[in-house]
Amino acid sequence: MPTRNDAAIWSGLFRISTDSGQTLQAQIRQAIVAAILDRQIAASMPLPSCRILAEKLGVARGTVVLAFQQLVDQGFLIARERRGHFVNPEVLTSPAKPSQRQSEGDTIDWKARRQVPATELQSPSNQVNWIKYSYPFVYGQFDPALFPTAEWRECNRMALAVLEIRNWAADMVDRDDPLLIEQIQARLLPRRGIFANPDEIIVTLGAQNALYMLATLLMTKGSKVAMEDPGYPDARSIFNLAGAETLPVRVDAEGIVADEVPSDAGFVFVTPSHHCPTMVPLSARRRQQLLADAAERNQIIIEDGYDSQLLDDAPQQALKSLDRSGRVIYVGSMSKTLAPGLRIGYIVAPSELIAELRALRRFMLRHPPANNQRAVALFLSLGHHEALVRRLSAAFGERRRRLIQAVNAFLPEWRATDSAGGASVWLEGPQGMDTGALAETAAARSVVIEPGKRFFARGDRHTQFMRLGISSIALQHIEPGIRELATAAGRRPAAA
Amino acid sequence: MPTRNDAAIWSGLFRISTDSGQTLQAQIRQAIVAAILDRQIAASMPLPSCRILAEKLGVARGTVVLAFQQLVDQGFLIARERRGHFVNPEVLTSPAKPSQRQSEGDTIDWKARRQVPATELQSPSNQVNWIKYSYPFVYGQFDPALFPTAEWRECNRMALAVLEIRNWAADMVDRDDPLLIEQIQARLLPRRGIFANPDEIIVTLGAQNALYMLATLLMTKGSKVAMEDPGYPDARSIFNLAGAETLPVRVDAEGIVADEVPSDAGFVFVTPSHHCPTMVPLSARRRQQLLADAAERNQIIIEDGYDSQLLDDAPQQALKSLDRSGRVIYVGSMSKTLAPGLRIGYIVAPSELIAELRALRRFMLRHPPANNQRAVALFLSLGHHEALVRRLSAAFGERRRRLIQAVNAFLPEWRATDSAGGASVWLEGPQGMDTGALAETAAARSVVIEPGKRFFARGDRHTQFMRLGISSIALQHIEPGIRELATAAGRRPAAA
Repeated sequence: MPTRNDAAIWSGLFRISTDSGQTLQAQIRQAIVAAILDRQIAASMPLPSCRILAEKLGVARGTVVLAFQQLVDQGFLIARERRGHFVNPEVLTSPAKPSQRQSEGDTIDWKARRQVPATELQSPSNQVNWIKYSYPFVYGQFDPALFPTAEWRECNRMALAVLEIRNWAADMVDRDDPLLIEQIQARLLPRRGIFANPDEIIVTLGAQNALYMLATLLMTKGSKVAMEDPGYPDARSIFNLAGAETLPVRVDAEGIVADEVPSDAGFVFVTPSHHCPTMVPLSARRRQQLLADAAERNQIIIEDGYDSQLLDDAPQQALKSLDRSGRVIYVGSMSKTLAPGLRIGYIVAPSELIAELRALRRFMLRHPPANNQRAVALFLSLGHHEALVRRLSAAFGERRRRLIQAVNAFLPEWRATDSAGGASVWLEGPQGMDTGALAETAAARSVVIEPGKRFFARGDRHTQFMRLGISSIALQHIEPGIRELATAAGRRPAAA
Repeated sequence: MPTRNDAAIWSGLFRISTDSGQTLQAQIRQAIVAAILDRQIAASMPLPSCRILAEKLGVARGTVVLAFQQLVDQGFLIARERRGHFVNPEVLTSPAKPSQRQSEGDTIDWKARRQVPATELQSPSNQVNWIKYSYPFVYGQFDPALFPTAEWRECNRMALAVLEIRNWAADMVDRDDPLLIEQIQARLLPRRGIFANPDEIIVTLGAQNALYMLATLLMTKGSKVAMEDPGYPDARSIFNLAGAETLPVRVDAEGIVADEVPSDAGFVFVTPSHHCPTMVPLSARRRQQLLADAAERNQIIIEDGYDSQLLDDAPQQALKSLDRSGRVIYVGSMSKTLAPGLRIGYIVAPSELIAELRALRRFMLRHPPANNQRAVALFLSLGHHEALVRRLSAAFGERRRRLIQAVNAFLPEWRATDSAGGASVWLEGPQGMDTGALAETAAARSVVIEPGKRFFARGDRHTQFMRLGISSIALQHIEPGIRELATAAGRRPAAA
């Protein structure tokens, strides 16, 4: 065991940084705890004094004193009078690392053992590092510049009050935070014309978890789900995972072509507020027809209102607001407004179905984390979400107009789909264009675009589409980004 | 629309409370936002002045001024010079509530439509209101007195720094917070003798979600799962939901009777650190036999180390630490130490299996909320969890000894199972005792106990058992609680 207790070596253990978002004191504590648990500090010798360590690290002595004091309180260090601070030997009772690693002898063929082929389903779009690009035309991510930092902090501070902790720290088994249910019911749903009772609402871990629960509960091998084509690829994968067959239905300027929904489909999955990915709203005529046909055929409609909290120039009510028979299941989300990383969504459906979903959710994950439920509920109750939605809608509207201008100017051979709102624009390129290849050329110029192929049931026939997200790119970067994209497209002429 | 803008009526809109855990200013804002969205405030008349409202509510004028100012910033109110504050008519553009409710005409038989019978599986123990009882011998809930309030607040404050928000607000698709994976790998697992690579770990929404994912991925109709009887009822339900048959195996003072595991079981589910619910640790001999048999029969072992972070008088390594063939899947959780409401658990398994689970999780819920992952990672990195575990283990040890003393003194005809640790005690009553009936009599005396029936595959044959949890009851309430329980038991003599 190395003896590294002299301060010269000690300072090498620390990477003190003033812009890590953490206090110096916390950084010192983290480093000392790590060194103790990694057994880098001999228990037999005292740690360097606060004064010496403070000098070596270039921080105030008081900072080190406070850090040491808390480590004593936590039991990591022991203070011995006139001798200094020592590592508490009790924290070193865990076993030493064996020389041989565990998993070397993995003898099981896990692929052969699995019952669902999740790894073979369509993989997510590869936009993980978008934040490092200059022109990230990504969708569904957050924009640090628009995130309501102060407001969200306020709600978290409130949720961390002692009385609030009692409300969320316990296992809620199958329940949700009643304050969040109330806020969804009173604040979010009426904006889309939906009026529901508390027992008609369940909180989910984002909209995708909502679709997964619905598919698990209601679909099986042989189920048929009509869905928009192009459409939301994750929904397609989730329904397929549950054993269902998905039936692609054409989309035009009025949304899904209701006439072409197969009559033997048991389910219809739609995105009426803004069709994913073209963003066109479903026309009133089509809405009526979908509902009438569903009633006649006893179909269930799953309405994904994934971005319907955003305000449009021509705001649409939810399809669910027209439903008098209880056959429309509405799925909503906070991911497109507050933050996707929080994973808060919800389902609105008849109470009997919600009770079944609640029983299923109890076994799947019990409940979405209660501290986040409470913080989001406070965020809604304080009006922060209303204010955020107005701010986002205004910003996205401006960005959309700027993007379409730039496309018209610099990518004249591309056609942008007319849409009244949303946080992305759908573009069709010249015949023969391969946006998969374009994405690579564009990335080299620090532009991130999303090829449209994965939205289609038969993607190989639709290589000329792309989606440009505007939820994370700053207004002033849009035009330069489109110019770069045009250059990238120019260098890769149409193949046919 | 009622005109309620005079201050006398206004004060009726508020329920200002100094012990709600929220600031007065926030409460005023909540009340005004609610009144605006409920259309209780006429847009044509000014709100009462800050001075008048402050008087009526009995708060400082500055508090109301700040509340009004923020509502102006948020766009709920408009300040008109010399005329006062008005409701911004723009926020009232949402539709009015229709007179008829939606779900009256629910025409679908949802029970007939469902594919999984979740509502018919064993329901959770009915301990929802335990916090209101004087003597809550409940298990798996949190204790406000032991919750690390200051430390958890510190980690949340850190996670809310601007640079940290960038780390968690984004959609992580199928990834986890690398800092949390690192902390699980470096801090939690070595305590149980497990040394894993980052790609051998996935974060789950609590241990139960871990079991649900494993069952979904690996089990189907015809799968056979050997499990302890009595055993963890939720695991039984989850495996049954996936279509698997569960094979009950007897438990004695050394844990599961390995000899009696059926050789045709494809899976063995065990709780080796403390058997659920008796709390006995699995003996070394049995561990070796389980592993040897599993290798011979190509069985997969699912190890639920649900409470294995707690320190025992005789600490046990994980069964996984002995596994050289990669056939032991380890499930862990933060619910028994930090807080069940946060829903943070994890799976340790060969990387190939983790990759499959990650693909499945992406469709099920994408990822556990990233803000909680970051806060828990910071909590671990600062040593707070180590300190908490020591505090909890000491408190539970003391409570367990006190409970056993009290049982010996006041319930002499009951036999407590000898166990080296854990946060509950398993008790066998006199033959013919019905602990279901006892629970009702006890509840009338403000004592919550958990009847043991639900832990058995054939619960009706085992009515004389009960589990007394000690994770939420204060030390000084244990003896009085057992006295009350003895009185309750005395009034309901054995039936046979």
